[in-house]
Formats: sequence, C-alpha cells, structure tokens
Amino acid sequence: MAQIRPHTLSGFMELLPEDQKKMQRVMATLRESYALYGFTPLDTPVIESADVLLAKGGGETEKQIYRFTKGESDLALRFDLTVPLAKYVALHANELTFPFRRYQIGKVYRGERAQRGRFREFYQADIDIIGDGRLDIMNEAEIPAVIYRTFHALGLKNFRIRVNNRKVLNGFFALLGLTEKSGDVMRTIDKLDKIGPGKVRAVLVDEFAVEPEAADKVLEFISFPGTSAEKLAFLRRYEGKNETFDLGLHELATVVEYVGSFGVPAENFEIDLTIARGLDYYTGTVYETVMTDHPEIGSICSGGRYDNLAGYYTDRTLPGVGISIGVTRLFYVLQEQDMLSKDILTAPAEAVVIPMDTDCMAFAVETATALRAEGVKTQIYFENRKFKQKIGFADKSGIPFALIIGGDEAAAGVVSLKDMAAGTQEKLTPAEAAAKINAALALRRRAQAIRG
Amino acid sequence: MAQIRPHTLSGFMELLPEDQKKMQRVMATLRESYALYGFTPLDTPVIESADVLLAKGGGETEKQIYRFTKGESDLALRFDLTVPLAKYVALHANELTFPFRRYQIGKVYRGERAQRGRFREFYQADIDIIGDGRLDIMNEAEIPAVIYRTFHALGLKNFRIRVNNRKVLNGFFALLGLTEKSGDVMRTIDKLDKIGPGKVRAVLVDEFAVEPEAADKVLEFISFPGTSAEKLAFLRRYEGKNETFDLGLHELATVVEYVGSFGVPAENFEIDLTIARGLDYYTGTVYETVMTDHPEIGSICSGGRYDNLAGYYTDRTLPGVGISIGVTRLFYVLQEQDMLSKDILTAPAEAVVIPMDTDCMAFAVETATALRAEGVKTQIYFENRKFKQKIGFADKSGIPFALIIGGDEAAAGVVSLKDMAAGTQEKLTPAEAAAKINAALALRRRAQAIRG
Repeated sequence: MAQIRPHTLSGFMELLPEDQKKMQRVMATLRESYALYGFTPLDTPVIESADVLLAKGGGETEKQIYRFTKGESDLALRFDLTVPLAKYVALHANELTFPFRRYQIGKVYRGERAQRGRFREFYQADIDIIGDGRLDIMNEAEIPAVIYRTFHALGLKNFRIRVNNRKVLNGFFALLGLTEKSGDVMRTIDKLDKIGPGKVRAVLVDEFAVEPEAADKVLEFISFPGTSAEKLAFLRRYEGKNETFDLGLHELATVVEYVGSFGVPAENFEIDLTIARGLDYYTGTVYETVMTDHPEIGSICSGGRYDNLAGYYTDRTLPGVGISIGVTRLFYVLQEQDMLSKDILTAPAEAVVIPMDTDCMAFAVETATALRAEGVKTQIYFENRKFKQKIGFADKSGIPFALIIGGDEAAAGVVSLKDMAAGTQEKLTPAEAAAKINAALALRRRAQAIRG
Repeated sequence: MAQIRPHTLSGFMELLPEDQKKMQRVMATLRESYALYGFTPLDTPVIESADVLLAKGGGETEKQIYRFTKGESDLALRFDLTVPLAKYVALHANELTFPFRRYQIGKVYRGERAQRGRFREFYQADIDIIGDGRLDIMNEAEIPAVIYRTFHALGLKNFRIRVNNRKVLNGFFALLGLTEKSGDVMRTIDKLDKIGPGKVRAVLVDEFAVEPEAADKVLEFISFPGTSAEKLAFLRRYEGKNETFDLGLHELATVVEYVGSFGVPAENFEIDLTIARGLDYYTGTVYETVMTDHPEIGSICSGGRYDNLAGYYTDRTLPGVGISIGVTRLFYVLQEQDMLSKDILTAPAEAVVIPMDTDCMAFAVETATALRAEGVKTQIYFENRKFKQKIGFADKSGIPFALIIGGDEAAAGVVSLKDMAAGTQEKLTPAEAAAKINAALALRRRAQAIRG
C-alpha cells in the first residue's frame, strides 16, 4: 500500500496519553471552578462567517486568521472566544437573562510564526459577565476571587493577581494633558516589564512626543511602591482633580475593599499601577496574574472591564468584564517547569483483570463488571500471551492494581490482588478488592494538576 | 458604528444556555462511562495536513471535506476521529502500550448539504481498542457492555444493541459463489431497513447480477427470526462448509456467551443478521444500536472490528475494534422527541445571593464565599435595581434558591433562604442554608440526561 508519512502539524499540541490525563485534570478543574461561581457553560462553532469574525477588522488578527471558502461561503476559524461571545449575545440577547455569566473552554486558531512554546491551535478558558445597559463594579470585584479559586484548585501556590484601573491611568494622563495620547501611552507602559523604564521613557518622548517631564511623572506615578493600602493612599492625593480619575479610584478601592470577603488571601493580590493591558477596549479594572517564582513567563490569566461588547453587531449596550486563561500555553509552561503533578494517575485504568486462561474468562469478566459497578476504572487483559507479558502490561501501563485470576481463584470466587507499586499480593473477593482499590486511590483521584 | 448582522452558520449547532447544560451532562456521562472501561482520553488537532487526512482518498469524504491553504500548507479539518487515531497510533506506536484503549470526544466537519437535523460541525464520541499485530475476540465481546453502560447511564431505557459478524456473512456469500460480489452484496443488505427486502432483492439481481435464487437465499438467511440462541442454532447448520463462516460463527457465539457476564441485560442485546454496516474496512463483529421506540431514527451508536487501522501510514499491523456515537445528531433527536431530562438544573447557578443594599454587601459576599466553600454553585446579584427585579432575576434564570440579605439579616448574621419553586422562606445561617441547598439538590445533581 502506498504510504503517507504520519505527522502532526507544527504549532499543534498533541499529547501522549499520560500528559493528556494531566491536561484533562486541568480542564476538569477549570470547568468545576468556573461553574462554582455561577458561570454557565457555552459552546459556539469553531467556524464562523468571516464577516462576523472580522467585524472589527484590521490589525494582527486579519493576518493570523485561518480564512477559507467552502462553496459560496467566506469562512474563518475563531481566533478568540470573545468575538464569538459578542455574536452570541447580540444574536440571542432576547433569550438571555442579564447579567449573563458564561464560561467557555475551547480551541482557537492563530496562524502565528511557528516557534517553541507558541501554538497555532490552543485552548482558551474564558469567563465573562455581560450586563444589559449597565454592570455594577462589584462584578469587577468578584473576578479576583474566581482567578484565585481556580489557580488554588489547580494546586498553584505562588501566584499573584495584579489589578489596576484604566480610569485611574486615563484620569492621571488627563492631568498631564496627555488625553489625546492616552492610547499610545497605555500601550507603551504595558511593555514596562519587557523593555524597562528607560526604554518606556524613550518611546514616550521620542515616538509619541510626550514632554520629558510628563514622561517622568508617568513613570514615577505607575512605579509608586508599597502595599495596596499604601497605593490607594497615594492615589487619594490626586482626588478631586479629574472626574475619570476619581471614578477609577473609587472602583479600585471597591475591588480592594471586598477582596478579603471574597476569600482571596492578601498575599495573592495587589494593586499594580503598571498594569495597562494592550487591548484598546478595556475601560475599567484590568487584571493580570503572574507566577511569582516565574515572572519571566508573564501573565497566565488576564482580562478586564469593557463598556461595549457587541457594538459591531447591535445597538444594545452590553458592558462586561472577563478574563482568559491560555490553557495550552500554560500547560506547556508547567511541563517545561516540571510543575505538573506526579500524583495524578496517568494510566488508562485503575485496575487490570488478568485471566490466566480461557477457563477463567467468565469469572474475570464478572470481576471486572463488579469493579466497574463500584466505580473502579477497570480493563481486562484479554490477549493470549505468557503471564510475564500479561503482568508486564500492567507494569508498562502504570496501572496500580492487577487482579490475577487462575483456575483456583475462579473456582474459589476470589482474585489475587496485586499492588503493583508495593509488590504485595493477597486473595480477596471481587467486592473486597474493589473496596481496597477505592480506599487506596481516594487521594490520587483528587490530586491537583499542579505541584507548586 | 457600521454593523454586521450577527448570525451563526447553517448546519452549526449553537445551543441556548439551558440546552447547553443538558448537552454538558451528556458529555460528562460519556467521559465517565468510557473511562470506567479503562479507555484513556485523547485529544488531537482539528486541523491536519490534507495529505494525512486524505491518505485513503476518494469518495464522499473528499467532496465534503473542509480543505484550504494557509501559507504553503495544504490543510483540512478532520471529518471523523478514526483517521486522526490511525495517524496518532502510527506516529506514536513506539510510545504506546498495546492493546491501546482510547476514547475521544471532539468536533468533526463535513460540508454536507444543509438540511434539518444534519450538521456540518458535530461531535463524535468514539472508543477504540487497538492491538499490536493481533487482538483477541474478547475485546469485541466487551464493546456491547460499554454501549449498554453508556446509554443506561444517560437514562435511555428502550434501546437494543444489535450485533452481527461480517465473517458469517462473507462465509455465507462464499457458499453461494458470491465472494467477488461480497462488498456490493454487503452494502446492499445494509440498506434493508431503508428500502425493504423487495428493493434489496431487485438491486442484487438487476444491479449486481446476483442470481435470483442466490438473492432469495441471502434474504432468507439474514431474515431468519428468533432469539440470539435460536439464530446461533440456525447458523450451526452451515458449520463445516467454509472456514471464514466457521470462524465468524465462533466469534459471534463468543460475543453472545459473555454478554451476560459483562452485565448487559438480555432485552438490550440481540444478534441481527441483517446488520452489515456500509464501511468496507470492517472484518468481524459489527454493531448498531437502535432506540426501540424510535426505529425510524436509525442507529445511534455503530462500529465494528477492523483488521488494519493504519495501513496508509505504517507497515505495522494494527487491528482494532471501535464504536462511535454521533453526539450532536443524538442530542438533536432527543430534543425533537422531547426526551431530554427535565430534572437537570439548567440555571447558571444553584443559588443567588441578593443583597438589599450596599450596606449588606460584605455579608452577602461572605455568604456566597461560604456557600461556594460547601460546593454550592453560587452567584451574587450585584445590580442596583428594585427588589422585584432582583428576585425576578432568580425566577427568570430558574435558579432554585435565593438568599435574601437585608440590614436586619446582615446584623444578625443570617439570610432569608427562599425556595423559589415552593415559595417558602426561612431565616438560616449561611452554613445552614448551604446544608439545606446541598440536601435539596442532591438528586438533581445526579439527574440523567435522557428521560425514557
């Protein structure tokens, strides 16, 4: 037969079974955590009409998008989950109840230049809260709680949620007469982590013609050190001079005020006045989340408040707040840092039943059926091989328990339960074996995805 | 702002939140059920190189496939989960342990003519067991157990798993001298349900030049009535005349022999000699599953045994057996038949905390935090609206419990827990409220997806 070389496209993650199991645990934790906060699951098509996806148009998006025709249709693959959400909410506004809280975990596509750790197909895990006409600041205050709970449940220990408020920045820029340049200033200070303060100052002055003195004041402002309380006290010095600033300060203070009631420990949260976010559409609170032991990785969960989600599709004003986790990238980084849990059972099953010969097959099948009825993930090794190969399968697969059944066992209605790690073996009834396995695996079944 | 009409492509399922929750339950049940039988989860890219996906080439596939270029690359969207599995196993054969049992639930794409109930993007939920060189018949015997357990767990009552064996059919065709026409005969009798015996006979005789007498014998053979035991007895009359037939009969008898040990009730299983399946690559046991109250829907879970999964990619012989559920189509049919459970909670949350004013906000947030810590899916209604609108949100969302918090409640550290369906209200601490909600919802949380 003429053969084709099997290969997977570059930039497309395809995991081996053991890692896929870990990824599955990450996904399950995200779903469970998002649902706990009253977000409803949503699933939208991967393919949309190109005019819908590109309603906003222009920029990097258009270059990276996977776009093609099928028959008469101009189609494209979604490049994020926000545009499909905007479409969904505009299309179904009359059938939804607002505020509308949804989560979505799905694959998105960007034809980026292939390089290590960059993916063209990757999972995003988003939550958004969409209001009809207005949306209370308390929704913004709740987001850090969802971020905290999610990473805590994943098992991550050293991370910090950083918040800022764009109104505070825009208000301060206005005080410096920089209102018309605020977008440029915002995008420049967003690069502070990457390029450093000297370069930020240079870009502001040279590229955007910001007065050197104003550039210094911007840098001084965003770099003010201290705790969240100290930063709020610092910001209050500017109160009463600009309406936008005052509103932003009030919003930021509200977010800080309730963060404790929401159960977020102080060490996992801080105001960071340097957070600006690159995207133009944020208008209030903005969020980033960093792994404090690995600042070089950058933000692993980002988002913010926007005032008009679906303006490209509807006249209805739909303000919202949302965050996104780039799951595929995060998983890749955790793999690289050897931070994925070793406790998660990565074998295909928790138990394998091994009949010694055909005569004990019926009892082997009944044993597996009994184990499954008790919730034990069980397979049967059916192949007619030597015992060494049969037990070798359990070993090689990493299946923790083997239930060996020979003629004597089948006649007595018992199994030889072998604990593969301990190497111990004992004769038990199938029911006793199931109870023993369930007890032994209780902890591992709840293992967190990340050790860290 | 220039606006684009928001729309979703025809042939692409996009559910409202309530239905999405039901779909979510279907998906969770499939994952859980497949995993219980020791199948490991797999996830492969939606996009593959076109030469990989079309290695087999030709036919309907090529016409329906979504194929496009990006840069220099000739790409295509997967049209099933079997070809990507073949690629995966060929590519990673040295890193896998055989028999390799995997499940995969994912979207696939076929540019079919748009019509009611036909989807261009749809979920398939597949399991396959792949052997290295050989694979014991017991693996085929186990598949009905997975099918039974899966639909049983979904809540479906009236369904029947029908099995046949292609070797039995091919052996019988050989006895009639039809070996060279066996593919055509197989594909024709596969249409028996749709076109009836008269038409099948006509096609066999007129189109494929089968002797009328032979055609009659084929129809008589496959239509033999009775229980599985009676059909086996009937088949034994032909034993000893053809090696393929004898092997098929032995396999079919083995599948029937163990079905009870695997926990499949007799009424959910039968031999059906008319089952042939259209696909050429099946070589042994074939499966279909019908809803006995809705035979017009056709098979909701089909599959079979194949001798060489990945011949287009590798010289390694990889026999297997697998089944596939077309989840999107199944869900659509269940919706149409009003067979989706009414017990599943389709609201975004199980409880909504309603603070009467800003003064009780901190206690409201603490209450929500306490509920979430006890596993209650909770949201807080933050918007500054009249009480009627606040409680109206709970009502309209279908959230079963509202926790109303006014100044008195906040001062006393209690909430007014309102059971929205019963209309009753009582003052409880947050911990008491959480316990009450958890007890009340225990059954609904385990509700099956299908009623029927």
